[in-house]
Order: sequence, then structure tokens, then C-alpha cells
Amino acid sequence: MKMWQTLGIFTSVCAISEIIFQIYRYRLKRSSVRKKKNKTEVLFFPDKKVACINYFTSECENESCSFSHEENSLSKLFQFIHNAVKSVDVCVFVFTCTDLADLLIQAVGRGVSVRVITDCEQVDIPGSQIWRLRSQGIAVRTDNSSFYMHHKFVIIDNTRLLNGSFNWTRQAVTGNQENLLVTSDSQLVCLYKERFAKLWRQYKTKKDQ
Amino acid sequence: MKMWQTLGIFTSVCAISEIIFQIYRYRLKRSSVRKKKNKTEVLFFPDKKVACINYFTSECENESCSFSHEENSLSKLFQFIHNAVKSVDVCVFVFTCTDLADLLIQAVGRGVSVRVITDCEQVDIPGSQIWRLRSQGIAVRTDNSSFYMHHKFVIIDNTRLLNGSFNWTRQAVTGNQENLLVTSDSQLVCLYKERFAKLWRQYKTKKDQ
Repeated sequence: MKMWQTLGIFTSVCAISEIIFQIYRYRLKRSSVRKKKNKTEVLFFPDKKVACINYFTSECENESCSFSHEENSLSKLFQFIHNAVKSVDVCVFVFTCTDLADLLIQAVGRGVSVRVITDCEQVDIPGSQIWRLRSQGIAVRTDNSSFYMHHKFVIIDNTRLLNGSFNWTRQAVTGNQENLLVTSDSQLVCLYKERFAKLWRQYKTKKDQ
Repeated sequence: MKMWQTLGIFTSVCAISEIIFQIYRYRLKRSSVRKKKNKTEVLFFPDKKVACINYFTSECENESCSFSHEENSLSKLFQFIHNAVKSVDVCVFVFTCTDLADLLIQAVGRGVSVRVITDCEQVDIPGSQIWRLRSQGIAVRTDNSSFYMHHKFVIIDNTRLLNGSFNWTRQAVTGNQENLLVTSDSQLVCLYKERFAKLWRQYKTKKDQ
């Protein structure tokens, strides 16, 4: 009788353990799916229309506004920058998009640290926003070589990376085939943060000291 | 006495469950760390020297070989393409790198399906590999617009994505600041696969029918 009792207890222990296992596993799986959903997405361009910067960052009061009030890839990029609370580190080959420059200037106004790395040969091209950014106190550093500083990525609050083929130009928004991969994968964010820091040090000039 | 016995059994069940929990959790964590390690990395350019294609795909018998036999970003890209067994789908703005063209031609020889999408204005630039690929039977499609087909990504065996700023040129290998984010994240791979399929359909011409 005692043997049967022991066996019964043992079986119960196993059964209960198994049930708790499965519950734990299920909850873990659900949370990792949820996490994953928040973690990665891709912004593909071209958008059909340029998103309205006011609509997606505060409110658009212009009734005849000709910009898009539908969510699209640019409006998502607007929101990522607009929601930054600590830092925005931009590393981009061409920067001529006035809306994105506006957002960086607004971010500095909110007390967000903004740094920009770009290609030295792109600083003086028509429509370049680099001088405007500099005049608003944003630190910009450039390479000093005949090769390209060709990256196109941005790190927001040291926790989110956007990386791809997308230069910060209007042509990239509504003309070209482009992509921006968005991820909060800490390993990836860390690798790009390190690369940004390396280039930032490397491109320091006497003026920056 | 019976109450104490029941309480004892109950406590044992809880304790054993907790132990099994922790073991399970630990093993899960270890396996997910391992998985993550295999999953993502970033190839940053420029490399100091161009990698030797022979050394990294078969064997280099040239004793005075001037190419690099040290692992670098290009050698890793070589290996990703060389190890493809089913398919290589390339979507890249500029393609002038002969070594990477060689690898695609070799892949076709192994029975791997190779497709290339590129920008129509880049097909005839000096050093373009597009005509060479076409002459070897590789299907190439291009946009038909004044805007850029500006993506720079490749999907290998429908399971691995490499995406970034990297055009397939020698200048991108040893001159420019570039990156290629490598991931096996199935959600991301799927999104880029869908985009490739969409562009492949969109760029179909009468000749392709």
C-alpha cells in the first residue's frame, strides 16, 4: 500500500510540474511574440505623398493642407524622431530634407542631444541642410576623404536603430525604391552605436576641441 | 498528523516544480543566447584589403597572391554567397564588383537560382557586371524610371538577409564607410522577400515573358 502511495505522490508531482511547465512556456512564447512585434519593422519607400510634419508631430490646422495625413513610412520616421527624449545620432550620406532637419532642430529645443555625421562632399550641395543644422547649434562632423561616408542609419535614445538605403532627401521619400530596417535588438543597436562613436572620434577637427 | 503530511507533500510538489522551472528557464535562456549569436552580425566596411576569392571559397595556390587571406567583411560576404544552396536574390543599386559577379556565376553553376534587380541607369556604367551576368544566363530586371532603384540587399536561401548601404563595388569594399546588417530573423527576411517579389513582378518586361 505504501509503495502505491509513494508512486501516486510521485505521479502527482510530475503531472503538476508538467502543467506549470506548459503554462510558463506558453506565457513566455506569447511575451516573446509580443516583444518581437514591437521590435522590428521595415519602412519601405517611395511614399505616395510627403507626410504632413505638423499632423504627425502636433496638429495640422491648415484645412487645405496638401501633405498626407495618412500614416506612411515618412510619418513613422517623423514620429520616431519626434518621440526621442535623450539622443538622436544620425549618420547619413546626403541630407537635404527640410522636414527632417526641422525635426532635429525641434529635438534640440526639447533638450535632446543631436549629433550628425555626413559626407564632406555633400555638405555644400544644393539644398543641403548641414549649414542650417550647424547654425542651430547641432554638432555635425564629416569625413575628410575622397571616399564616401556612405552609411544611412540613425540611433534613437540609444535603444532603436533605423538602417538601410534611405538618404534624408525628398527624392528618397517619394521617388526612389528605398528601405529602412527598424530594430530595437540591443546587440545590433550596440554595434552601430560603437561604429558611430568610432567615426565621431575619427572625424574630430581642431574646431571641435 | 494527516494535515502535516498533506502540507509536506504540497511543499515538496512546489519545491520540485520550482527546481524544474529554474532548470527549464536556464536552458531556454542559454539556447536563446546561442540562437541570437548565430542570428545577427554587422559587416562594416572599408576592409583594409580585398579578400582573396579563391582562398575563401576553395583554395589559393598562388604563393605571391596579393589579396587578403585574413577574414574580413568581404570574405564573410563571399562565404555567405558561396554557401548558398537554393537561391540568391540580389537587389542592388550599383554592381561593378567582378568578384561578386564571379560568385553569382559559380552559384548558378551549382544549380542555385540567382536573380538580380538593379537600377536601369547603372546597367551601362563603366565596369558594370550586369551584361556579364546576363550573358551567363542570370535573370536581371531593372526599374524603368528616372528615380533610383536604390535598395542594397540580398536574400540567401530565403533564410538570411544582408541589408545596408553597401553597393557591390570595389570602392565600397576598400574605400567607403559602409555597412551590411546580417540577420536570419524570419519576420525581417519575409518582409524583404515580399518586397523583392513585388519589384520582380513590377519590373517584368515583354522579353521576360
